[in-house]
Amino acid sequence: MVSYHPPKHFEKKIPAGDDRTRLVCNQCEWVHYENPKIIVGLVPIYEGKILLCNRAIEPRQGYWTIPAGFMELKETAEAGAKREAWEEACVQVEINALLGVYSIPRAGQVHLIYRAVMDKPEFAAGPESHDVRLFAWEDIPWDNLAFLSNHWALQHYYQSREWDHFAPFGVPDEDVDEVSGRTT
Amino acid sequence: MVSYHPPKHFEKKIPAGDDRTRLVCNQCEWVHYENPKIIVGLVPIYEGKILLCNRAIEPRQGYWTIPAGFMELKETAEAGAKREAWEEACVQVEINALLGVYSIPRAGQVHLIYRAVMDKPEFAAGPESHDVRLFAWEDIPWDNLAFLSNHWALQHYYQSREWDHFAPFGVPDEDVDEVSGRTT
Ligand SMILES: [Zn+2]
Ligand SMILES: [Zn+2]
Repeated sequence: MVSYHPPKHFEKKIPAGDDRTRLVCNQCEWVHYENPKIIVGLVPIYEGKILLCNRAIEPRQGYWTIPAGFMELKETAEAGAKREAWEEACVQVEINALLGVYSIPRAGQVHLIYRAVMDKPEFAAGPESHDVRLFAWEDIPWDNLAFLSNHWALQHYYQSREWDHFAPFGVPDEDVDEVSGRTT
Repeated sequence: MVSYHPPKHFEKKIPAGDDRTRLVCNQCEWVHYENPKIIVGLVPIYEGKILLCNRAIEPRQGYWTIPAGFMELKETAEAGAKREAWEEACVQVEINALLGVYSIPRAGQVHLIYRAVMDKPEFAAGPESHDVRLFAWEDIPWDNLAFLSNHWALQHYYQSREWDHFAPFGVPDEDVDEVSGRTT
């Protein structure tokens, strides 16, 4: 995969009519607006167990995560989450709730994480996973989860597992500073 | 504001290791990933009335909308929605619910729309608004709303106005095809 960094022929300046610094191509004045990106993912559940993927790629290779990734154009958030589950864990699921809406200013991301059910225990490692496994709640590898947001999604799944309709959770109060991007 | 269209020195091709067409700079091979953008907005309520802005800018100049716009980097979704309310309607609000999560594949957008309360009737037209007004429910200018998503947010506000905690609404079933981007 090619670098996410903008090329050298872009420079930071404030375009006419704008009020903040943007990346502007110094050859054609095209403005590259950088906006927050959406991560879509889901917590796949089979008979009370949770499906996790062991990452075969960086970042956090070898650590466990729920299926999640960048939302693409031409899909809904739910379709994107199901696509990621299919790509990473070869699993088909039905979404039944929006579990979390997590803003992570530090990373320029908003995560939309769903709760989903598997109707049969069929899954396999996709190309980005070393391994995919169902974990009972007491066996979740907390010390080897890939991302802080995995902790949120799993805890929020567990808190709301008996609920049908509920407001999605946000970033837990104790982690808001950690993900704010503020340095003070 | 400068064009959102990518410059001529970008061409569409599939980068190595990727599985879809992207915009690639033909001078330096930088890949311009286009991902869905997040629109953040809110329905501002004062004593049961709803604050709407008459748009001073295209698209849909002269039509009414809730305060909403592109989420920026380095802010949470809630902070972005409050920023838009401040910029467009000079109003300070408190958010008390996530009303809707609307995926609009046709536009490459996800809208995160909140319900918010004003504690005093203080507001004014910001630079992007001709006029800002409080409307009773029966006076909402349905035929002069700027966007389909305004209809959703207002109807969903009204349906849930007595509710404290609820799952956010999505795009109404009858409008899913309209916003899908599918041409069949
Ligand atoms: Zn250029
Ligand atoms: Zn280039």
